[in-house]
Amino acid sequence: MFPKNAWYVACTPDEFVEKPLGRQICGEKMVFYRGPEGQVAAVEDFCPHRGAPLSLGYVEDGLLVCGYHGLKMGSDGRTAEMPGQRVQGFPCIRNYPIEERFGFVWVWPGDPEQANRDEIPVLEWADNPEWAYGGGLYHINCDYRLMIDNLMDLTHETYVHSTSIGQREIDEAPVSTKVDGETVITSRYMDNIMAPPFWRAALKANHLADDVAVDRWQICRFTPPSHVMIDVGVAHAGHGGYAAPDAHKAASIVVDFITPETETSIWYFWGMARHFKPGDTHLTAQIRDGQGKIFAEDLEMLERQQQNLLDYPQRKLLKLNIDAGGVQARRLLDRLIKAEQQQNESAATGR
Amino acid sequence: MFPKNAWYVACTPDEFVEKPLGRQICGEKMVFYRGPEGQVAAVEDFCPHRGAPLSLGYVEDGLLVCGYHGLKMGSDGRTAEMPGQRVQGFPCIRNYPIEERFGFVWVWPGDPEQANRDEIPVLEWADNPEWAYGGGLYHINCDYRLMIDNLMDLTHETYVHSTSIGQREIDEAPVSTKVDGETVITSRYMDNIMAPPFWRAALKANHLADDVAVDRWQICRFTPPSHVMIDVGVAHAGHGGYAAPDAHKAASIVVDFITPETETSIWYFWGMARHFKPGDTHLTAQIRDGQGKIFAEDLEMLERQQQNLLDYPQRKLLKLNIDAGGVQARRLLDRLIKAEQQQNESAATGR
Amino acid sequence: MFPKNAWYVACTPDEFVEKPLGRQICGEKMVFYRGPEGQVAAVEDFCPHRGAPLSLGYVEDGLLVCGYHGLKMGSDGRTAEMPGQRVQGFPCIRNYPIEERFGFVWVWPGDPEQANRDEIPVLEWADNPEWAYGGGLYHINCDYRLMIDNLMDLTHETYVHSTSIGQREIDEAPVSTKVDGETVITSRYMDNIMAPPFWRAALKANHLADDVAVDRWQICRFTPPSHVMIDVGVAHAGHGGYAAPDAHKAASIVVDFITPETETSIWYFWGMARHFKPGDTHLTAQIRDGQGKIFAEDLEMLERQQQNLLDYPQRKLLKLNIDAGGVQARRLLDRLIKAEQQQNESAATGR
Repeated sequence: MFPKNAWYVACTPDEFVEKPLGRQICGEKMVFYRGPEGQVAAVEDFCPHRGAPLSLGYVEDGLLVCGYHGLKMGSDGRTAEMPGQRVQGFPCIRNYPIEERFGFVWVWPGDPEQANRDEIPVLEWADNPEWAYGGGLYHINCDYRLMIDNLMDLTHETYVHSTSIGQREIDEAPVSTKVDGETVITSRYMDNIMAPPFWRAALKANHLADDVAVDRWQICRFTPPSHVMIDVGVAHAGHGGYAAPDAHKAASIVVDFITPETETSIWYFWGMARHFKPGDTHLTAQIRDGQGKIFAEDLEMLERQQQNLLDYPQRKLLKLNIDAGGVQARRLLDRLIKAEQQQNESAATGR
Repeated sequence: MFPKNAWYVACTPDEFVEKPLGRQICGEKMVFYRGPEGQVAAVEDFCPHRGAPLSLGYVEDGLLVCGYHGLKMGSDGRTAEMPGQRVQGFPCIRNYPIEERFGFVWVWPGDPEQANRDEIPVLEWADNPEWAYGGGLYHINCDYRLMIDNLMDLTHETYVHSTSIGQREIDEAPVSTKVDGETVITSRYMDNIMAPPFWRAALKANHLADDVAVDRWQICRFTPPSHVMIDVGVAHAGHGGYAAPDAHKAASIVVDFITPETETSIWYFWGMARHFKPGDTHLTAQIRDGQGKIFAEDLEMLERQQQNLLDYPQRKLLKLNIDAGGVQARRLLDRLIKAEQQQNESAATGR
Repeated sequence: MFPKNAWYVACTPDEFVEKPLGRQICGEKMVFYRGPEGQVAAVEDFCPHRGAPLSLGYVEDGLLVCGYHGLKMGSDGRTAEMPGQRVQGFPCIRNYPIEERFGFVWVWPGDPEQANRDEIPVLEWADNPEWAYGGGLYHINCDYRLMIDNLMDLTHETYVHSTSIGQREIDEAPVSTKVDGETVITSRYMDNIMAPPFWRAALKANHLADDVAVDRWQICRFTPPSHVMIDVGVAHAGHGGYAAPDAHKAASIVVDFITPETETSIWYFWGMARHFKPGDTHLTAQIRDGQGKIFAEDLEMLERQQQNLLDYPQRKLLKLNIDAGGVQARRLLDRLIKAEQQQNESAATGR
């Protein structure tokens, strides 16, 4: 259960440099490539000739050539040409609204009529010289909402990531959740504590003392369909915490785009946008590697949790205060999914 | 959906030299071995004692000994003996009409009453000193008819096998399909072209110039249930092409026995019968290796095509002129399958 | 189909020294660990907070800490505490009657009210200085009853274990089966034969001549739900066989605890309790390795037999005299399973 009328991150441009990329997004098998003027394109990964996956083919003059018998597909889902054939009557395949922006490829798997490129979220840190970004991609066999829950309740850091970003104080600090329009915000402030290893390294990298008390913050922002941006950082204690001047803190945004592949699997685009030492590419690589290792610690937990939920479908889970972020996010999603279903039903009955 | 009252290639004799061979053919689990006088035998791979697979056992004095508790099975499907047991009342298992001929083992998975060994196709190139044969076996997860389509429409060579036997002229040359009784024939003649790499090597091996224009031919012959023999070759241009004297050409038959394992998997016996330099065993090995690599290029395409068709069961595929060979072959098969079903129903109702 | 109101061997204590052990027993996902005073504990492997498997967590002060968000589970299935939460209202999970005894951990997957620790079978050879024990664990994809059949009909040794414990005389010697209350006993005595390799080595290890005739015995004892203890051994011929004085024989008990994981998979605890040279730990290791290799020979046979039975569900298997042990064991099991079902139905209707 996921909204289909929404912009999802489908891939990054480096994934289809050599050849087209086949990937399933929200249950739709798509192929990603560059069309006539180099712009990104996505059509169904299904050749109308004999059903071969177009992603096994290649791009020629902006047309996607089927690698089986040479049908040339246009980015509009219409066959452009085929050796020795008249192609006007060939059935179309779906093409998908698509946009390359902020270093990601965004796709709209639902009704193309409703796709509005202005609704692609603005990533203020992207293409911004004051920020540096590094990230990666994991495939995980779980419902996308389990990952939203995971990111909206960071008390798991104490247990899953105990050697890097976890610390007892996360469990102990009060957490507050509020809904602001279509954004769910869960915040936690931990003042006057010692930084855990990951943040001690970040302070050091930013030429700040790492052996003094800090104020730490975590502000998780969920927006539909499944983006979670988390303001994280530490400032030397007493300088204003989250609001401290740059000279006293190390601040970043944890970036999470969670794209459903199927009902029980996701493409998880994770990364960190850093607001200090943006020109230090070595540091960017170092942080990406570290984050990659930390985030990999969640994989087994999420996949085994998913398996447990499939095995015990009747069980009700608890909704504690720490779960409020996930609960509110699901409430928003349920509303969107229901609206989409009603819309589809109205369209089907012609009303 | 495949005819069961038909002769299929099940295996080659080298596959059960050391021990019995268990293999599923047309949904029937069979075990192949040599019986009392060394003749090939096939029975169900199911011991009537406790259901163990007989293929885990061994052969002793022409009897198939179950490797679990020593029941000795005869090639007629009747238990011959078992230590300490009277076996007269033991239930029979199926045995299958079987024949070793032309270097292959042929099996009839359907009604044994209807099996006529005279209907095993005659392979004029087998056991013939004017010809040399080399081949191999692939297991592929696809409906056997997808492989028939593949072989009856060689335009795919241009795309799937572009570095060996493919060339643009295949797409450009007209193709003709005709049905002659129970044979479907699709022919293509390409005159006055340059040979692609595979055929240049063949010309060279036959001590013919490989840098001159040639006439190339491809004549695909489908016969039920799933055999495709393809006359292929090149002759120096202007000498009559397919009909040119041996001194001016390199000619072969591509041999394809496509045996269904299940509805969506096959045992694919491929090979090449060569009508030049038959005594050159090194050349035979070289061609087999080359053909093996070329035919392996089809595997991913066929398996992913099959997956796409399973994912989109409602989609209708196109039937273009290039697809006529496959379309006619399927028409023949549909007729045979329907006749077999009616026969089975009549038998069931006693009419 | 297995009784759930029964004591099964779930694991051995060494399996959860480092961290909790997650294991499915009779369809129940359990986690095994040591509770407050070091006693063994088993609860459902499902955290009541968000469904994470508790087996991914750790033990602290005898409480099982969920590795996701730190919920602390008691061995009674009640949440003991959780950071920042009141836990009184949390739903309970199942806990299972459990007992560490004779070197094994015994669990009762059924109705806890009916669990009686006195019914755990007495293993006279365990914790007994006159005996030595070595064993191992295999996971096998088969119905637990196929393994019972296997062990109650040792004629398979002649075929499956032909190079170690098998010999023609097993097939030839008469076998007798009797039911004594809830025990099924199948016996075979082979007098005045040459010992097979495994037993020649055992004689040698016991400083007895291995090149003289022996009397060999196999007495298989099945008790529900799925324990098979087999008295095995050889004595120099003419000294009384099974009843011969210790000085003339090498005698052991083959130990088999067959614990269903699902309907078609098992945890198979195998071992050998030896009644000679009990202090020779090197010999214990040597015998365990040998037995491990021999028993591994059954795995493929059992898994392929299971697959055959799933593929041919309508086939009736033979019940020969050699199968009497398995047949009687299944009869006992059927009765227990039926009684359990009736009891459950009565409970459900309140009668």
